[in-house]
Amino acid sequence: MRVGWREVEEKAQEWVREAGALLLASLKESLVIETKTNASDLVTNMDRHIEKYFIERIQRTYPTHRVLGEEGYGDEVASAEGTIWMIDPIDGTMNFVHQKRNFAISVGVYHEGEGMIGIIYDPVHDEMYHAVRGEGAYCNGVRIAELQPGNVAEGVIAVNAMWLTENPKVNAEKMAALVREARGTRSYGCAALEIVYVATGRLDGYLTPRLSPWDFAAGAVIIQETGGIITTFAGRALDPVQKGSVLVARPGVHPQLLEYVK
Amino acid sequence: MRVGWREVEEKAQEWVREAGALLLASLKESLVIETKTNASDLVTNMDRHIEKYFIERIQRTYPTHRVLGEEGYGDEVASAEGTIWMIDPIDGTMNFVHQKRNFAISVGVYHEGEGMIGIIYDPVHDEMYHAVRGEGAYCNGVRIAELQPGNVAEGVIAVNAMWLTENPKVNAEKMAALVREARGTRSYGCAALEIVYVATGRLDGYLTPRLSPWDFAAGAVIIQETGGIITTFAGRALDPVQKGSVLVARPGVHPQLLEYVK
Repeated sequence: MRVGWREVEEKAQEWVREAGALLLASLKESLVIETKTNASDLVTNMDRHIEKYFIERIQRTYPTHRVLGEEGYGDEVASAEGTIWMIDPIDGTMNFVHQKRNFAISVGVYHEGEGMIGIIYDPVHDEMYHAVRGEGAYCNGVRIAELQPGNVAEGVIAVNAMWLTENPKVNAEKMAALVREARGTRSYGCAALEIVYVATGRLDGYLTPRLSPWDFAAGAVIIQETGGIITTFAGRALDPVQKGSVLVARPGVHPQLLEYVK
Repeated sequence: MRVGWREVEEKAQEWVREAGALLLASLKESLVIETKTNASDLVTNMDRHIEKYFIERIQRTYPTHRVLGEEGYGDEVASAEGTIWMIDPIDGTMNFVHQKRNFAISVGVYHEGEGMIGIIYDPVHDEMYHAVRGEGAYCNGVRIAELQPGNVAEGVIAVNAMWLTENPKVNAEKMAALVREARGTRSYGCAALEIVYVATGRLDGYLTPRLSPWDFAAGAVIIQETGGIITTFAGRALDPVQKGSVLVARPGVHPQLLEYVK
């Protein structure tokens, strides 16, 4: 079985790399396009184009697999049965448009509800983060070191400033207390990269009250292969086919962060 | 006179690039060092080492120039008379230690209180942002386009979550209102790069209540060469030898942001 997933991962990496090249090419073109039409159209078109690109290849190569994608061209997926590809063609679309960087392609492959493959690709910096369940996590083929325990007071935590304003999802006062306790906070606007930053130890934790499966599917596989912990705000396992809150952190930091979002 | 500053800028770029190589080399070494001593020592040592490196070269080449640096090895600078180099050897030290990326070397050269040269170098991504007063701003030799007017509602604003908690420097409630109005917010933990992100249009604005001259000196020269606006929270010109609040944004966004920090 192990060999099987490794082969699927290689195929997935190949497609992700090709899709990344398409995105980079579109950014060069967009210098022209942006003056004619608006940036949201560009990103919507590219999102759809890349999602269809994946679906076509997956259906041809793995006809029994299903696809759950942000743009909705995949299958109706209500249960986690069988093998499901969770695809976000451009995670961080606002960054894609405004910054032409700090976005990623995110591809997770789940089998009977369990994450088997996670791939997150930052095409601008040519950084491919990839993992097969039980076989470790890698960046461009180099093994990512196991995460050591830490604590919030010495940690850098990713949290969007939005959650410090009055909002229906998290307690803004508790978030303010967290920001004061942490050594520092950051916000990058790309969930897949923020999870990968935790996996590589660049961040000590990241929390957000609402992500879709395609936002966290790949990251969840990668983070678990580096010894990080990913759960909902209630401390439960993520449901791979449902939207939900996501709390991801290195050991030691995760239980401390849970206290702020319970 | 123009030719003179261009020559100084070329010299400064050469030194900055060499200093960047030293930082990159220290990051590779640090994989070993970190297990023996602590990360703060490493960064303090590198900060001092790079600052002394600049001072030595500046004193030898331009003996009449003074140096104002974060680590304090330069001159006592109370007035803006003559020519002053403002140097931050590692802007974003927390990122340097935790992330091994998202930090920069920042070098500004001021003459009789006016910014003549600005250089900000991101060694990890090999991005050199540079400007000579009146001659445009560049990234790796490519001219940065002039900033077009924008507005907060369609803009991405960099603001640290800290300023949404109760603090003596800015009104946290007004910051919350700003976060709700903006299309998105980000926080990178490196003032020099955040100013450069505004200069390149990746961010539409950035604000922070307290920066030192070496944090904003280079960025102020670069942003003005792209048509951006940089002032204190009171809307006044920055004092190049004093700590102060900094508000930097593209046209249109700057007056809107001022309303939130007045």
